Amino acid sequence: MKLMITGGAGFLGSRLARALLARGSLAGARIEHLVLADQVPPSAALTADARVEARVGPLLAQCAALAGEHFDGVFHLASAVSGECEADFELGLRSNLDTTRALLDALRASVLAGAPPTRLVFSSSIAVFGPDASALLPAQVGDTTLPAPQTSYGTQKLMCEYMIADYTRKGYVDGRSARLMTVAVRPGRPNGAASSFFSGIIREPLAGQEAILPVSPQTAHPISSPARTIEGLIAVYEASREALGGRLALNLPAVNVRVSEMLDALEAVAGRTVRERVRFVADPIIASIVANWPSAATAERAARLGLRPDADFADIIRQYIADCALAPGGAEALKGMRD
Amino acid sequence: MKLMITGGAGFLGSRLARALLARGSLAGARIEHLVLADQVPPSAALTADARVEARVGPLLAQCAALAGEHFDGVFHLASAVSGECEADFELGLRSNLDTTRALLDALRASVLAGAPPTRLVFSSSIAVFGPDASALLPAQVGDTTLPAPQTSYGTQKLMCEYMIADYTRKGYVDGRSARLMTVAVRPGRPNGAASSFFSGIIREPLAGQEAILPVSPQTAHPISSPARTIEGLIAVYEASREALGGRLALNLPAVNVRVSEMLDALEAVAGRTVRERVRFVADPIIASIVANWPSAATAERAARLGLRPDADFADIIRQYIADCALAPGGAEALKGMRD
Repeated sequence: MKLMITGGAGFLGSRLARALLARGSLAGARIEHLVLADQVPPSAALTADARVEARVGPLLAQCAALAGEHFDGVFHLASAVSGECEADFELGLRSNLDTTRALLDALRASVLAGAPPTRLVFSSSIAVFGPDASALLPAQVGDTTLPAPQTSYGTQKLMCEYMIADYTRKGYVDGRSARLMTVAVRPGRPNGAASSFFSGIIREPLAGQEAILPVSPQTAHPISSPARTIEGLIAVYEASREALGGRLALNLPAVNVRVSEMLDALEAVAGRTVRERVRFVADPIIASIVANWPSAATAERAARLGLRPDADFADIIRQYIADCALAPGGAEALKGMRD
Repeated sequence: MKLMITGGAGFLGSRLARALLARGSLAGARIEHLVLADQVPPSAALTADARVEARVGPLLAQCAALAGEHFDGVFHLASAVSGECEADFELGLRSNLDTTRALLDALRASVLAGAPPTRLVFSSSIAVFGPDASALLPAQVGDTTLPAPQTSYGTQKLMCEYMIADYTRKGYVDGRSARLMTVAVRPGRPNGAASSFFSGIIREPLAGQEAILPVSPQTAHPISSPARTIEGLIAVYEASREALGGRLALNLPAVNVRVSEMLDALEAVAGRTVRERVRFVADPIIASIVANWPSAATAERAARLGLRPDADFADIIRQYIADCALAPGGAEALKGMRD
């Protein structure tokens, strides 16, 4: 089978690529060809695999050429992130809405030319939810909560969910939308996402660096490890339409946790010195974005697919430490643990 | 003040134009200039009013020029209808999604040039609701029901609602979306809407003609008269953001009625001979579209704005008869009543 991952050189895209190549098959078929589309090239470790083809350049520009090509499956992860979309309204519309539409139209052209519908997993987001002034956001958001996004990023993700559902209803694609929770602990540098600090307050102290907490320690939020997130994307791909339970968009599982509990877990796993590297410096812009995000989520439909959240946040930290220990140069990321 | 009605030559657009011109003011300001944008010219009766300016041509092509012009308010009624959008997928995306986006971008350009945000009322639709396979459509859909559109038309309307909410949140427009119920009794000829028969089974018999009922008489649906619909659009325009109750999309009031009750009302108002001109001939395409529409709706937020539904369906028929009696050539539309 021939697959594509958009955003295939990104953190989740690369990790998904590695997981798929290691499995060797998906939904019962052997993976022969894996296209990684991204604005930047994927790692040499990925392109060394004979099954991998890298396509480097803006996805919007790549989409027209896709119309003449059939893919069995696409994981559509490419996206501008929340902070970027708030700062640059047109960037968000172009990168998230227009690009998804162009991708859907390319897949539709392939169906109109006689190919079977491509299975498409779209990475949507917990950011589709937000409070509305009349009915405050429920304590927990679930698969049947009425979305009321309060960011452009969340709005664009939600619009794409509905667009994918309609292209699917028409038979132009076999789509489903997995709403990713905030993924932590991400390695590397902070990115433009307003949620970036959820990783930073663990990653930087473990590396011996100070980290800034821009929101109140009482802030609660649903978090998922990279491993559980990748597992979720694959399970949503493999699920039958029936198993998805009617609607095509579903929440992935999360650990619902307060920032103060995250820091307690950091102390339990890595010690007090590490925890004390986190300093609270309020950032009103970040805080105003995060204040409109849900503090907890449930994932009933994902549970029916057999998906479970991480055991607890300490487990998420331990996974990050184990990942670093295996990664080339990972010792640097953990040098703060030996202070 | 300067206003625009898109779809301003259509049935609801013309009626809204007449209502606004007769009022002379809106939200406390005098109406000095009313632009009617449509693919066809408005009636001579409308263009005879010195305040009216007709702009004829596709709205999508008109939008770029709008960026340099400030409107105090826009009623955005222009739309491809449900049946058309099911038959021609690209037409629906272009006429409904792309055109609304182009209109929003023109209004945003005006704000970026220093003008205050234009107040925008978008005519959304009951078609945003539909059943989903896991949780059957509730008996009544209300303002907080989770939409699951089962037509491209409903999907596009819902995407536009969310897009308008985000442009409003960013201050680029002062938008709100009124979800129109099925409007009956419409005069004139059947149109491409799958709901066209709801008017046809009243209008044609009153004119002495046979009418085809394409769905089961047990079909129930929320219906609103043209007069109550126009009243709703104006009230939603005049409402403060606070009075809208948080969310920017709301249902307009409706009479929830079965087709068999509609026919009973027709007999009560116009007699048995008239009712017997309706013949049941199942149309599987129409029936499959209508089967996915809600059978009843509530309108809590609209009620808080003081909006009420028609008294009953007989009242809706009587309004149609009274409208015909006043209209030029209206006697022709009622000639079946004297058989």
